Amino acid sequence: MPTTLIITPTPVLHEDPCSGNCYKIRLTAALLNQPLERRQYDILSGETRTPEFLEQVNANGRIPVLQIGDKFLPESNAACFYLADGSALIPQDRFTRADMLRWMFFEQYNHEPNVATLRFWLSIVGEDRLSEMQRAQIPAKRAAGEEALSLMDRHLATRDWFVGTRASLADVALYAYTSVCEEGGFSLADRPNLRAWLSRVETLPDFEPWSDAQV
Amino acid sequence: MPTTLIITPTPVLHEDPCSGNCYKIRLTAALLNQPLERRQYDILSGETRTPEFLEQVNANGRIPVLQIGDKFLPESNAACFYLADGSALIPQDRFTRADMLRWMFFEQYNHEPNVATLRFWLSIVGEDRLSEMQRAQIPAKRAAGEEALSLMDRHLATRDWFVGTRASLADVALYAYTSVCEEGGFSLADRPNLRAWLSRVETLPDFEPWSDAQV
Repeated sequence: MPTTLIITPTPVLHEDPCSGNCYKIRLTAALLNQPLERRQYDILSGETRTPEFLEQVNANGRIPVLQIGDKFLPESNAACFYLADGSALIPQDRFTRADMLRWMFFEQYNHEPNVATLRFWLSIVGEDRLSEMQRAQIPAKRAAGEEALSLMDRHLATRDWFVGTRASLADVALYAYTSVCEEGGFSLADRPNLRAWLSRVETLPDFEPWSDAQV
Repeated sequence: MPTTLIITPTPVLHEDPCSGNCYKIRLTAALLNQPLERRQYDILSGETRTPEFLEQVNANGRIPVLQIGDKFLPESNAACFYLADGSALIPQDRFTRADMLRWMFFEQYNHEPNVATLRFWLSIVGEDRLSEMQRAQIPAKRAAGEEALSLMDRHLATRDWFVGTRASLADVALYAYTSVCEEGGFSLADRPNLRAWLSRVETLPDFEPWSDAQV
């Protein structure tokens, strides 16, 4: 973990490679051919809760944070929006642009707290290390995650991309944790539209996989 | 509850007046002098879970939904963005615009599920009608809500508005549930910057209060 911040002309991603919220930003940058420097922290060992991190990077103690010069931008979807602003990943049509944000808010409210949290609890923290309170929340998060994935699958029954007729940030934001949903105990077996859409995202020019090799 | 949908030239807000997520959209429209029709549903009696609602308005079974012609836009902050697109409520500067979205994502991830949910549970549903599971979540939501409100208060120690030098959608989004946080058992007594900011929002030209008189 860096103890002093360096100002660079290239945006800097403060991240933990295990986080899909961080991967979203790397994927956005890759699709845009935008170079990105990376500073890595281990969330499990509290590296984003140190006084230095809270004061310099994010008072909310969370990653990802995108650093642009001496400014810091928390919230993954806001960072994606910053990088993609003015590009084809943000639709020009007013309704479609708002509809893209609709799916990005859906991702943070209905998808991430369920699909991503169960992956984090079950595959990264480990079920035997969960608190009683966390364990008690698993059924509700399971049900809400299943509902979010099914809603996405139904939405994609008649369309290739979440909004409009080409890939947008809505696809990038939803791709990250959906692509690893099985690590949280969710299944794509009965969700053929989701599977086809994941493949479609993976064949975008300059698509970058979320692989351990990048760590 | 309407059973047939009517297409109008004026945007239609499908809402429950007790919801701050709906109020955000009314406040955005008021600040923009944008007329808005309103269709009201009672979420407590399941009016947003009927087959008609799920098929016609929102497959996610939630309000608010902003209807524009024959198109439907769920997610409160996306609806605010649609209405305000091109107006002074969305900053022109690229970083500031993304930073506005950052606070809107913070609102949906860190603020609403805690500050708004506790208000809903304690003041609208009623504590004695909560499930055991809901009751068990109160301490964690209390702690996370306190943290969100304190972070906001600290952020406002050196600035009048959440981003930039004037009111933006970040202020509108965060105003709604912060203004009624005491109904969820939170206190503004030791948060003078938040209190001053609430008053600042309330003196914006064309500010519209969230009053029962509008129901």
